[in-house]
Amino acid sequence: MKVLQLADTNEYTPKAMKRFFLVEDSENFKIINFNLDEGVTFPVHSHDLDGELSIQVLEGEGFFLGEGDAAIPARQGDILISEIREPHGVRATSKMRILVTIAPPI
Amino acid sequence: MKVLQLADTNEYTPKAMKRFFLVEDSENFKIINFNLDEGVTFPVHSHDLDGELSIQVLEGEGFFLGEGDAAIPARQGDILISEIREPHGVRATSKMRILVTIAPPI
Repeated sequence: MKVLQLADTNEYTPKAMKRFFLVEDSENFKIINFNLDEGVTFPVHSHDLDGELSIQVLEGEGFFLGEGDAAIPARQGDILISEIREPHGVRATSKMRILVTIAPPI
Repeated sequence: MKVLQLADTNEYTPKAMKRFFLVEDSENFKIINFNLDEGVTFPVHSHDLDGELSIQVLEGEGFFLGEGDAAIPARQGDILISEIREPHGVRATSKMRILVTIAPPI
């Protein structure tokens, strides 16, 4: 049992995406905090593996990206649920913090 | 791929805990939003099963509860990581919203 604090990872890299592995060694899931500077895109990607992920918007706003040109508005409190093998990404239109949970972890 | 909105489940039951199954049918994880009214306790419990859970404080504050009298301050942005078989619970000292992720789901 341990407690992680998102307040500890509230850092950005100008014009880039900063990644914090909050949990990286579990066999059950992986929890990662990404902080995207305004205008940054987490490119659409996918992995040919079983499993699922959630992307929760902690702060800021932008779009969840999917196959083709799919772009779904993403605001604080919105959670994308996706298969790992479905194309998924994020575009930040403001500074944006997201929490990604992957289960089982990849 | 689908998008859930925590803004849609911002409801409380006076003096009780309200539960929203945001994801209940996945074989990979289960994501549940609980909203605890001020003063409500989610009693300490555990299950003798493999797996792990996270409890993220979305709004409000209180304590993460553990074995014996363990009580760890829990504020917005704090995340408890626990084995499913470790005793865990929550006590709300204000209105408090939490997001629980269980992997694999039970």
